[in-house]
Amino acid sequence: MAQDKRTAFFISDGTGLTVEAIGHSLLAQFRDQQVEQVTLPYVDSTEKVQLVLERIERASMESGLQPVIITSIVSDEIRRQLHRSPALMLDVFESYLTPLANLFGRDPAQTVNISHGIADDRRYSERIEAVHFAMDNDDGRRVREFERADIILVGVSRSGKTPTCLYLALQFGLRAANYPITEEDMDSTALPKILRPYRDKLFGLTIDPWRLMSIRQERRANSRYASLEQCEFEVRQVEQMLRRAQVPFLNATQLSVEELATRLMSQAGIERRIS
Amino acid sequence: MAQDKRTAFFISDGTGLTVEAIGHSLLAQFRDQQVEQVTLPYVDSTEKVQLVLERIERASMESGLQPVIITSIVSDEIRRQLHRSPALMLDVFESYLTPLANLFGRDPAQTVNISHGIADDRRYSERIEAVHFAMDNDDGRRVREFERADIILVGVSRSGKTPTCLYLALQFGLRAANYPITEEDMDSTALPKILRPYRDKLFGLTIDPWRLMSIRQERRANSRYASLEQCEFEVRQVEQMLRRAQVPFLNATQLSVEELATRLMSQAGIERRIS
Repeated sequence: MAQDKRTAFFISDGTGLTVEAIGHSLLAQFRDQQVEQVTLPYVDSTEKVQLVLERIERASMESGLQPVIITSIVSDEIRRQLHRSPALMLDVFESYLTPLANLFGRDPAQTVNISHGIADDRRYSERIEAVHFAMDNDDGRRVREFERADIILVGVSRSGKTPTCLYLALQFGLRAANYPITEEDMDSTALPKILRPYRDKLFGLTIDPWRLMSIRQERRANSRYASLEQCEFEVRQVEQMLRRAQVPFLNATQLSVEELATRLMSQAGIERRIS
Repeated sequence: MAQDKRTAFFISDGTGLTVEAIGHSLLAQFRDQQVEQVTLPYVDSTEKVQLVLERIERASMESGLQPVIITSIVSDEIRRQLHRSPALMLDVFESYLTPLANLFGRDPAQTVNISHGIADDRRYSERIEAVHFAMDNDDGRRVREFERADIILVGVSRSGKTPTCLYLALQFGLRAANYPITEEDMDSTALPKILRPYRDKLFGLTIDPWRLMSIRQERRANSRYASLEQCEFEVRQVEQMLRRAQVPFLNATQLSVEELATRLMSQAGIERRIS
């Protein structure tokens, strides 16, 4: 027994995605600590809390270390039950609902899981429309509905365009197309003809050649496509092309898909379609 | 001037996605309040905070109502500066870093934006691999690498399979394929032959016929495909098929893509590949 690792539980009556994100960013400030992280979603009944409490108790006993709970549970009753645990309790709703209730001059509703379901027509339609748009307009492969796009990402193959477009669609309902700049487009540093009418919608992604090489090696090891020379050449050409056409761009090397998406929206001044 | 609406600012030195999510779930408890919600990401310098403070001051003056700030800024200095605002301050890092520092017996690192960038090789590779897998294996259209799938979603056309698969890929690095049950598959209530070897990986999405009809009407108005009769028939057939084959399923009508993804993982006992 006795793993000597502390456990942090992220406990929610919904998906758990928010408390998990809070937990990750808080624990990232204590990188030298070994902490097992466990997300427990949909804890929405007294029976489920009971099982959770037993699990926390076990983690505490086995490690000899006080567990941490980060939680956002709406129901007062379930929250009170959870507070019986021996863990350090960081309770988002407890911390913040009272000041908000004072400000608004009324009690919180205590309704769990007010979510944007498929039944929320407009939001779902925007989102699904954006997802299908991104898939159809990926890699300039099938269709090129650039006139309907909110944004068109350009960059060398494997610079992160596809996941960024899909994220923009899912998270913000944006219609994001992408177009890979291929070797054929690199004879000159002018924008490819097909992109020129849409210059205002273009946004570039670039990437450090060594990182591009390693990504491409995973796909086609030892190919010319994945060689450092080729990666250096393509990145240089595309960066020149973007600068010359005054297309804004971001270096994707150190950024997550979430950061790419939010930074480019902020730089390009694009507003989300859903929230 | 004088919009008489209160403003809530979600302010972060990173993407702002986490504080925004906290803000949405807190404000959802006060639905009768008119609150303008503004996300301000990448507030990571004293110059930027200054602009933010002026904006908050303006919102306060124009509405005559005290604004709300929900924030997670790592730097003590920037945080202190933000605290000069007249808003009600809900500060996640201030609330929770001290108890955590006491528990761990050390100070927080104060490093901003420790994120999983593209440079985080393994995580990025898993994620990109999963995204391309989902795109390639969408709608049984191009390839059918069912043996490599972590999960295979099945359901009638337009039941939410595609966005759920993409979300599973982006958020959890899961390889999610999907296969639409079409009318040809409905002559019997046995599983389509192609799916039978993978029964353990199957998960069904179903949907209320009236909602399916409205989604399909947007795509092909007044078609047989979008008629209530056809939607009722397809949903009934597929639910019978899933029950008979003992494939678990969820009704997507009232659930968001995030909820579908997290609920099906929890029901099917599937662990994420990235966190």
